[in-house]
Formats: sequence, structure tokens, C-alpha cells
Amino acid sequence: MITGKNYIGNKLSANGSKTYKTFNPKLNLENEWTFYEATEEELNEATKLASEAFESYRNFTAERKAGFLRVIADEIEALGDLLIETYCMESGLPEGRAKGERGRTVGQLRTFAGTLEDGSWVEASIDTALPDRAPVPKPDIRKMLFPMGPVAVFGSSNFPLAYSTAGGDTASALAAGCPVIVKSHPMHAGTGELVASAILKAVKKADMPNGVFSNLNSSGIEVGQQLVKHPVMKAVGFTGSIGGGTALYKLANERTEPIPVFAEMGSINPVVVLPSALEEKGNYWSEQYAGSIMLGAGQFCTNPGLILGLKSEALDTFISSLGKEIAKLEPSCMLHPNIYGNYEKGKQTAAAQAGTSPITSFETEPQPYFAQQLVLTTEGKNFLENPKLHQEVFGPFSIVVECEDALELITILDHLEGQLTGTILGSEQEVGEHANIVAALGSRVGRIIFNGVPTGVEVCPSMVHGGPFPASTDSRFSAVGPYAIKRWVRPVAFQSWPQDFLPDALKDENPLQILRLVNGVYTNAAI
Amino acid sequence: MITGKNYIGNKLSANGSKTYKTFNPKLNLENEWTFYEATEEELNEATKLASEAFESYRNFTAERKAGFLRVIADEIEALGDLLIETYCMESGLPEGRAKGERGRTVGQLRTFAGTLEDGSWVEASIDTALPDRAPVPKPDIRKMLFPMGPVAVFGSSNFPLAYSTAGGDTASALAAGCPVIVKSHPMHAGTGELVASAILKAVKKADMPNGVFSNLNSSGIEVGQQLVKHPVMKAVGFTGSIGGGTALYKLANERTEPIPVFAEMGSINPVVVLPSALEEKGNYWSEQYAGSIMLGAGQFCTNPGLILGLKSEALDTFISSLGKEIAKLEPSCMLHPNIYGNYEKGKQTAAAQAGTSPITSFETEPQPYFAQQLVLTTEGKNFLENPKLHQEVFGPFSIVVECEDALELITILDHLEGQLTGTILGSEQEVGEHANIVAALGSRVGRIIFNGVPTGVEVCPSMVHGGPFPASTDSRFSAVGPYAIKRWVRPVAFQSWPQDFLPDALKDENPLQILRLVNGVYTNAAI
Repeated sequence: MITGKNYIGNKLSANGSKTYKTFNPKLNLENEWTFYEATEEELNEATKLASEAFESYRNFTAERKAGFLRVIADEIEALGDLLIETYCMESGLPEGRAKGERGRTVGQLRTFAGTLEDGSWVEASIDTALPDRAPVPKPDIRKMLFPMGPVAVFGSSNFPLAYSTAGGDTASALAAGCPVIVKSHPMHAGTGELVASAILKAVKKADMPNGVFSNLNSSGIEVGQQLVKHPVMKAVGFTGSIGGGTALYKLANERTEPIPVFAEMGSINPVVVLPSALEEKGNYWSEQYAGSIMLGAGQFCTNPGLILGLKSEALDTFISSLGKEIAKLEPSCMLHPNIYGNYEKGKQTAAAQAGTSPITSFETEPQPYFAQQLVLTTEGKNFLENPKLHQEVFGPFSIVVECEDALELITILDHLEGQLTGTILGSEQEVGEHANIVAALGSRVGRIIFNGVPTGVEVCPSMVHGGPFPASTDSRFSAVGPYAIKRWVRPVAFQSWPQDFLPDALKDENPLQILRLVNGVYTNAAI
Repeated sequence: MITGKNYIGNKLSANGSKTYKTFNPKLNLENEWTFYEATEEELNEATKLASEAFESYRNFTAERKAGFLRVIADEIEALGDLLIETYCMESGLPEGRAKGERGRTVGQLRTFAGTLEDGSWVEASIDTALPDRAPVPKPDIRKMLFPMGPVAVFGSSNFPLAYSTAGGDTASALAAGCPVIVKSHPMHAGTGELVASAILKAVKKADMPNGVFSNLNSSGIEVGQQLVKHPVMKAVGFTGSIGGGTALYKLANERTEPIPVFAEMGSINPVVVLPSALEEKGNYWSEQYAGSIMLGAGQFCTNPGLILGLKSEALDTFISSLGKEIAKLEPSCMLHPNIYGNYEKGKQTAAAQAGTSPITSFETEPQPYFAQQLVLTTEGKNFLENPKLHQEVFGPFSIVVECEDALELITILDHLEGQLTGTILGSEQEVGEHANIVAALGSRVGRIIFNGVPTGVEVCPSMVHGGPFPASTDSRFSAVGPYAIKRWVRPVAFQSWPQDFLPDALKDENPLQILRLVNGVYTNAAI
């Protein structure tokens, strides 16, 4: 049941007077539930509980934390159709997407449980003593990763489940041993509350400390700002806009004790189309890219917003084919009137820039809040000279840039900001022939794709979902995959520490049987 | 030969008119060399060269970069006595220390060469494709670490070799594949130039690109600020004061493209003395700690500046014994009149705080710039209430705090800022009995030591030299040991990338024979 209240640890709380509602963009009406924005007192109580919970939770065994994550996954599934219906009512997204995203969310939780059970993620490293070394003896030194403390998680608008309340940031932080306080996304506060209720059931069932998780409602920016500034909080995870992420990043850096912020802030995901891709599979790629641009109403941070090709007849054919393919696809509903409004504004701004022209035209207007797709073309020179065309338009939008030659294409890549992904379409031979293009693209992205679409982010150890600023605030980390846990942990070294009081991961006998670096050699063996 | 000029890549340059000299604190006179502060044009030229050098250097094989690091080490050794003499003339430190630090410096360079030759540090991770997976095929995804770009290194005052021109930051950045621009420390600009000349000889001998290393002279803050703000620079390494490190950190965060700063800013390194340590080995520890406090005129960032004990007769005896032991030791020369001046000021401020008393008194004044040691005692309550007593006094200074009970001691630990190290002196049994003290200390430090002194930082994979702010600006990294390389690299994922064009570390056949995570299993095997 959706109460509209905050979860301050295990307790439902609604002390504030500021309320808001969520919106069903597909039906063009407000949802019935009323949400109570968290007060500063409620926030302070949540941070106090998180700080207390950390004292025990940080020391729980991997098995115990893994069990907790698995129960959360089970409890989310146990929410059944109510969760799917609420998700759809608050996002306008179709049921299939809701179910797919739920699958990914519980999958992520179970992946982190597996990471904990495997145990090697703590990067245990042991250098045993050399008491006879001259001129000074070498002491025994051992290190491993430990949780940093309570983490503030800002859910995204476009992933109400997989990157929100119990999404990747929360799952990785809880796995690391960090309590989590979620600043609930106002567009899907009901979905958020349901998931929070599942987590709180799991807290009870798995006998976790009160305060290991809290969920704060908020429709404005104050609650989030208070949370990031609160001295108890030790790190921040954010998925959203460049403006929002950068503001929190600055706030965190201005604290007396600055804390790390991992903000994933989207990108335009440049795609380079090399000649053979068009000659051999031009129609295939135009169909694939029409689908990728339109997927989820273009509301993915990996949406291909920039396609770079070399001027040629083949490119003209591709553009015309892309236009036909994308015109075949039906517009779909955006997440919220505000997002729709921003899309329309961004689209119009882009279309109004000199030297651009749309590759499709539409005679009918779509339903309210349904996003009419737009693909523009422009010349390389024009694109280079106009930074307004480099900005992300969140929605089913893309620009095909016709470059004079490879040099102009490289110059464009060199002038792009950091990106989540970059894609090369072409033959293997061309990857070799255009090494400079590949290098220019690779230096700007977190993930580089050959002959594929950037949408679709695999959850696996080798995934990098992040990239140079402004794709993320720290390109050294990833928001997706088990290594996302590294954002919330820091190494601590133990020098000459008594065996009995070392963490199990560092004991001579290696009771956890994890992979460790022992005197420079990776081994699962005991010492 | 010391020319006083900047190295802008391979070229000696002195276009500026601002000059300065270094100082011999032991002889109380200026050294003869004149150093020319780098101009903005020289700085811009160095960044341009670094950016160009990065394009090739980033792609060099591990062997080639390792060879470069080994030649740098050889060339530093080849500087012979001139380097040792210059070091002593610019630091007041004794010859033995100079030679020891040179050994550590070349040792670090060779350690990083070994890390490169081993190759597993790139964290290669491979998830092979599952083309038949439903509902969507799983693509092949592989990732590894890549250099971020040119790194600005700010040398420290207290490690003219091991944490300056070719010190840990430079060695780890060059190992990562990042060109380095050093902002030379003005107190030992001659030592810096000699080391820079050795690096530039190595650049030539190892056929490295011009601009892979530059050395900029600077006596003020402008050159450093310009360097951190320059768009070409992608990361910053700093060792020094909280004020200096925090200023650069803020500057880097305010850039259009923020960049990571790893600043190691020192700490007071709390030591907890538990009863049995005093009962069983009180005299031993007073002797050890007298030595640790006095080591290198107390100019180590791991100097034990705070000793916490439980009120008892044994503690009184320890204090009196520490007083006697430290009085036996001769003051030594500080690095520079400014550092001496700051020490005297800090010491006097601390001694002037109510409720403190010195445990030793001295009748004679030491030579100019020789640091007279000072150990104060105070009560726990007094220490808690006066944050001025929590501040680092850089030099042979410490405070022994007499706590009423374990609770007061824990409260003090809970109120300390982040620290590089924390130490427990006691029996193994006490580590168990005082789990709360250990936990409170562990949560604030990068390294926790049992029955030892915090001075002496072992260079090994398990070392953590860093810690929660303000010990460092990012507790997730270490400035010492091979993992210091992680500060300058970011992961990039390759999706469905053609085998022939994958980096060797990610090719199926594993030509480098490195440890990789392949489909969730760590292995050195080919696929």
C-alpha cells in the first residue's frame, strides 16, 4: 500500500506539511496518492539512524549482507502486479519495460550478493614481515577494502526501479557495507515507496539494524542538498542531469569534509559510421538506429544523439533510409510533462540552429506527452562551430553530421565533451585504417562499441558505465556491474596486527578462500 | 650542473624575469644558484608538449615504459655525490637521509617497472558473448585500465627526492602512461633540477616523446594554479599542507571539466597506549616514541603528534620516561626558515593553550633553524574542548592526553579528523577487550599499527598511505605502493571489438599472460 510517507529507518513518518503528487502522463492526470516531503528533522533522524546502523552493519559477514540483498530481491518480486501497475502509472512506460526493469533490479541485487559470497572483491593484499631485513626490518602489512559510511542515493527519472530506490547505487552501497538514504525521485514516489517497503521488510526478515535504509520524499532540491551537506553522509550516488549532478558535486566538495560524488549525467553517445558499414549494411543500420533512437521514447542515457559520417552517396542513402525507418515507428509517452516540455524545448532549439534540416516530417501531432521523434542533418563545419548542437536533447532525437573528411570527423570528436559510449560502425579493416578516429573516440568515452547500438547496458564485471566529465564526475568508476561497489569503499592497511583480530579476509589461513595478493603473487592458498 | 632553468620538455628555458634562490638552513645562508620562475608561456608550451606526448606515450608497451623508469633510476644514481650534496645544501638533512631517500626513490621507480612488467595491474576483465541468450543476446564486453592524460605533480618540502620530482607521484603517473609536469618545490629547486635532468636524459636514451616530462620552477602559487586550471591537465598529485592541498582541490573542482586531485596533507597520527604496554614495556615505548617524534626533525607526515592514554600511575611513569628520553636527543636542522618559523609558531600556540604543560624543559637554545622538541600533556576533557590542540604542528612535537577512561578516549577518537595512521600499543588481549577503541581508531585512518611507531612507510602492495579527509582528499586511493598507479587511470570497456584491434591485455590468447577475470573466474589462461 502506498501511504505517501517517508521511511525514517523502519518507521513511516509524515511530519511535514509540504505535499505533492505524481503524474500519469499516459492518461494525462495526477495520480491519487499524496506524498509528504521529508522535514529537516526527519532527515536528521534518518542520518542519525544510518550512522548508528553503520557501526554494526559495517562488520556483518559477507554471507549476512548477501542474504539481506537476496531477501530485498525476493520482497520486490513479492510486490507483484501492484509494483508494475504503479510503475506504469508514474512513468507512462509500458508493462513490458516495467517487468524487464524489475528483472534487472532484482538481478543486480543478486549479482551483488554473489560478489559478496565470492569475497575476492575486497582486494585483500598481504606482505608478510621480513624481520631480518637490513637496514630496517620489514613489518607485516595487510590491506583490504572497507565501507566508507552512509551513502546518499539520488534516484533517476528514467529508471524508476533499476537506478532508483533499490537500484544499482543502493545495491552496491549496501553490498559494500554502507547504510543508504535515498532521496526519492518525485516523478515516481509511489514506486519508490513500494520498493522502500520491500527493503524495510527485508531489514526485518534479515535482522538488519534499524537505519540501514531510509527513504525520503522530496519534490524540490532542499532535501537533497541537506542530505549531501550532512556530516554523517560519506558518499553520494546520483543519476540524472548535468545540472543536478554538477550542483551536488560542488556542494559535496564545499563541505568541511569533502566527500566523493559519483554522478552519472548522461551523454550524446557519438556514433561514427565508416564507409563499408553503409555500403554493406546501410539498411540494417538505419533500421537498428531508428529503433535505438526511439527506444523508451529516447529516454536512455545511452541514446545515440550524434551520428558522424563521411560525405558520400552512401551516407545520403543512409540518411534517407534512417528517415524512412524512424518515420515508421510510433511515438511513445514520455515520463512526465516536465521531461516532455524539456524535450520539446531542446528539440526546437536544435532545429532552429542555422544549417540544420530535419530528415523526416510528420503530418499529425502525437498524443499529449508523446514524443515526436526528430533527426536533423548538418555539415561538419556547422556542427563544429555551434556548441548548442553538442548538447544532449533527452528524448528520441539525433543529429547526423556529414563530415568533409576523416580529419574533420576527428576534429569533431576532439571537441566533444566526455561521453558514456562511442560506437564505430564499419569493417574490421576500417578499424585499423582509421586508428586515429578510434583513438579520438576512445579517449572520450567509458565504453566503445563495434557494430552495435549504444542502448542496452549489460550488467557484468567488464561493463563500464561512466566516462570522462560530464558523462560522470569521476571516470575512474562505473555505475553498472559489480565494480560499482568500488565507489563506496576505501582501503585500510593493518601493520603487525595480531592474527586473531585481523578480518577473516586477511588471516593467514584464508578462511574465506578468496583470491589474495600474497607477497606479490595472486593466490587462494593459505599462508 | 644546476642552471636554474625550467625543463620545458627536453629544452632548458628561462624566459621569465622572476628569480629566487634556495637556502641552506644548516649553514644559515642562501645557496648560490638562481632559479627562473616559469612564465605562463613556458607553462603553456609544457602542457602542449605533454598533450602531444600523451598521444604516443599512452600506447607504449609495458616493457617500453618499464625500461624508461629503469633508465630514470639509473640516471638518478649516476648523478652521484652532486645530488646528495645538493639535497643536503637545500634541506639541512643529513647525508645518510639523503642516500636513504635516493634509495627509496630509485626503488620506487624500479617497483613500478616491475608492476608494468607483471602487467596484471590493468585489471583486465572479459565477459564473452552469449549470442543465444534470450530475450536479447549478450555481447562480448572487455575492459581494462587506461591512462587519463597529463598529470600535474606538486613535490613536497619534506621528501626532496622520494615525494618530489621523480618521486612516487611522478613514478606512478609515468607508469600509468601519463605525461608529468612537475611544479618544482621552491625549497629544493636545485635538487629538483638535477633529478629533472636525469629524467630528461632517460627520455632521450629510452627514446621517449618530447614533453613526457617537464619541470617548472616556481616560488609562489601562480604557476601551480595555472597548471591545475589548464584544460590539458587531467589529474593532480600533491603532497603538503592542508591549506595548499585543499586550495588546489577546490581549484580543480571549479574547472569546466573537474579533474581528480590526490592530495596527501599529513595528520597527527594518534597513538593509543593501553595499560599493559606501559606495565610491560613502558621504557621501551618511551624510547621508541622519543625517536619517532624526533626522526628527521619531526618532519614526517606520519609523525606521532597525539598520544592517548588512560590515567594511571603507569601513564605518569611513561610520560616522565618519555620526557627523559626525548631530552637525550639532539635537535636537528629543519628544512627551511619558513618551516622552522611555522614550527615555532605552532608550538608556541599549542603551549599557550590552557591546561597544557610541557614534559621537558631545556636550558640551552639550539642553533638557528634547529627544532627544539616539545611534548605537552593535557587532560582528555581539555583536549576535547580545544580544537586548536588537534592541529598538526609540523616538527618534533607531540601531545600526551591523559583520559579519564576508555569512553573519554573513544570520544576523543570520534572527534578527530581523518588521519594517515593510528597506532595501538598494548597486548593482543587488550585489542579484543578494547574493540570499541580499535573500531573508532580504524574508522579514521588509512593504516592501523599494532605495537610500532607510525613513522616509516613501507613501499609495498599492501601499504595504504592516505586516509579520510584531511589526511587525503580521496580515501579510496594510496600515495605509496604500486596501487598508487590507480589514481591516474580509468577503465574503458570494449564491446564486440575485433580481436586484432583489442589491446594485448584483452586478446583471447592472453599474450601478456596476465591475471584476468574471465567470465567471473580469475585466470592466467588463454580463452
